[in-house]
Amino acid sequence: MLQVGILGGGQLGRMLLQAAANYPVETHVLENDPECPSALLCSNFVAGDIRDFETVYQFGKRLDAITIEIENVNVEALEKLENEGVQVYPRPAVLRLIKNKILQKEYYKSHNLPSAAFMVTNSLTDLQGAGSFLPAVHKIAEGGYDGRGVQLLQTSADLSKGFSEPSVLEKKVAIKKEIAVIVAVDSKGKIALYPPVEMMFNKALNLLDYQLCPAGIPEKVLWKVEAIAIAVVRNLASHGLFAVELFVDENDEVLVNETAPRVHNSGHHTIEAHYSSQFDMLWRIILGYPLGNTKPILSSIMINIIGSEGHSGLVNYSGLNEVLAIDNAFVHIYGKKDTKPGRKMGHVTILSNERQDLIHKANKVRGALTAITSAQPES
Amino acid sequence: MLQVGILGGGQLGRMLLQAAANYPVETHVLENDPECPSALLCSNFVAGDIRDFETVYQFGKRLDAITIEIENVNVEALEKLENEGVQVYPRPAVLRLIKNKILQKEYYKSHNLPSAAFMVTNSLTDLQGAGSFLPAVHKIAEGGYDGRGVQLLQTSADLSKGFSEPSVLEKKVAIKKEIAVIVAVDSKGKIALYPPVEMMFNKALNLLDYQLCPAGIPEKVLWKVEAIAIAVVRNLASHGLFAVELFVDENDEVLVNETAPRVHNSGHHTIEAHYSSQFDMLWRIILGYPLGNTKPILSSIMINIIGSEGHSGLVNYSGLNEVLAIDNAFVHIYGKKDTKPGRKMGHVTILSNERQDLIHKANKVRGALTAITSAQPES
Repeated sequence: MLQVGILGGGQLGRMLLQAAANYPVETHVLENDPECPSALLCSNFVAGDIRDFETVYQFGKRLDAITIEIENVNVEALEKLENEGVQVYPRPAVLRLIKNKILQKEYYKSHNLPSAAFMVTNSLTDLQGAGSFLPAVHKIAEGGYDGRGVQLLQTSADLSKGFSEPSVLEKKVAIKKEIAVIVAVDSKGKIALYPPVEMMFNKALNLLDYQLCPAGIPEKVLWKVEAIAIAVVRNLASHGLFAVELFVDENDEVLVNETAPRVHNSGHHTIEAHYSSQFDMLWRIILGYPLGNTKPILSSIMINIIGSEGHSGLVNYSGLNEVLAIDNAFVHIYGKKDTKPGRKMGHVTILSNERQDLIHKANKVRGALTAITSAQPES
Repeated sequence: MLQVGILGGGQLGRMLLQAAANYPVETHVLENDPECPSALLCSNFVAGDIRDFETVYQFGKRLDAITIEIENVNVEALEKLENEGVQVYPRPAVLRLIKNKILQKEYYKSHNLPSAAFMVTNSLTDLQGAGSFLPAVHKIAEGGYDGRGVQLLQTSADLSKGFSEPSVLEKKVAIKKEIAVIVAVDSKGKIALYPPVEMMFNKALNLLDYQLCPAGIPEKVLWKVEAIAIAVVRNLASHGLFAVELFVDENDEVLVNETAPRVHNSGHHTIEAHYSSQFDMLWRIILGYPLGNTKPILSSIMINIIGSEGHSGLVNYSGLNEVLAIDNAFVHIYGKKDTKPGRKMGHVTILSNERQDLIHKANKVRGALTAITSAQPES
């Protein structure tokens, strides 16, 4: 049976493993935390650091294929494994490019892919001359995650808030919509696109608040979004699954924001709302099967379940009954033992053909469902 | 977190565990074979005999709830556990009744539920006077499975082929269709029905060949089927998930064949073809959530993948590529290491709104996909 490894053991890995159980494949997970969401559902769990060369190499060298559920992994080890014949999804060269925001921006530029204007800064000194470029967003080149390493600089007075390490300073876009497209590429280069989703963010935490599928955009914008998403992925020349995040600006111009070369939060809804989910699709790619059907069954909305402010410790979920009483509401609890403010603890997907109905129900979910700690024993 | 046990570790348990990963629940599996399909996907695997009183009692006494994926379990232990406050799905009294075909037939009779005429036999001597009752089907009261313990007796010359143990002799029905209905009952007695499926059997092995949903029956037959399925389950007075199998005879009369008080082969298609699958539904019941939506997304057909004749040993699947190239075809491989003739190794579900299209594609699957052994190393 094919032996496939996953670097990282979070919720994306967990959902990959749920889908893997349909196929003839043995799964291996590498992750430091033996209580991570993926530990119990794989064939073989290995505790270890996904950023360490030797750990990743030793983990991978007996496998047929390896994939990631987070970018922050040791790329050198993956390159060595690829050279030795292990199939890597995505190709390590792509990972190297994407995990560095400077290289990623330069990639878009060199391929004429529309993206916000930017400059590279290596220190606060570099930033001093950037006053005329503001308002702009300063992003560290490597290691940012869920809002860390990102800083909005409105005026010259903000320049001291920037980062004194290799970073990109991106001109602020007048964003009308944030869009994401999941793109699947098999090993023969065949491509399948999921319909774009429209993302709504919690500005305070920079966390996804909810996400609608399909996105509410005019057809000519949809065409641009799809054409750009395909061009972004095709030029990467790698098999795998990709989430391309884009902005639609006030003039209906479409700009690439960033690309994640893996299963992604913006594809959670595909589990129930599409015939083949992003997780099923990645297995089809890794196992060499034909690509699945990306069409929607119904329109959908996805709501992340985020750890409540002021609650750190053993998690307790309140409101699941109310949520599951909603027609076609589906819950995914990630099995994390402890909650903390802003932590992604689970998500809810709701299906319905009415956009207003979806938004109404999403607000109901947000009002009802919380991840909190509790003095009472969990029920 | 709620601690829930499953007795039995086969494919039904495996699919239950895939669905469990969506909810805040810790899963425990009791099963002799540590290489069974469920072993890797549960929180805690216990090797042991599900038919042994002490083993089942010790397994269950620290759990909040317990369910089954096969009837052949120790009912006495479940009764003791129920008395001590463990929630059991289905109630042990129901299991006691259903796992004995004599008690089950008497249950239908005493509740005026239409079912084939029958007589009870305890020995071959009892059978001798049954000539006028033929043609009939002789079934041992306990321990029959997938065609074992079932014998068709056409004429008096066949009487010696009967069983010399407690059995029922059931008058042969002129069957037009075989139907199954999955019925969900929550702990408040609320009921949800899935649409009936139509089952087609491989006569030689008495194994399900393929199964169509919804069943092709006239509306007045559908009403009878649904009314009888509800009456069968309501009179059992137990929470849980039930598969009621029925015959439609040549006069469009509907007769109960038998009932399984658990997730069932006849509900496999609900994973992709219905909004809430039978597995999701059982977790909703056990965890006290509202019942899910039983409506179909599209019509469907389900084909069992059965171990090929003449092949025993390490399994190799041939034809998966061809099957997964079919629009909306979904594969479930159960993770069994060895194949043997007639063994259930997996299943395929196909969605389409055209009945003829479904049958055409099912035949394509049956022609393409085999579970065989191979001299070549598995790919």
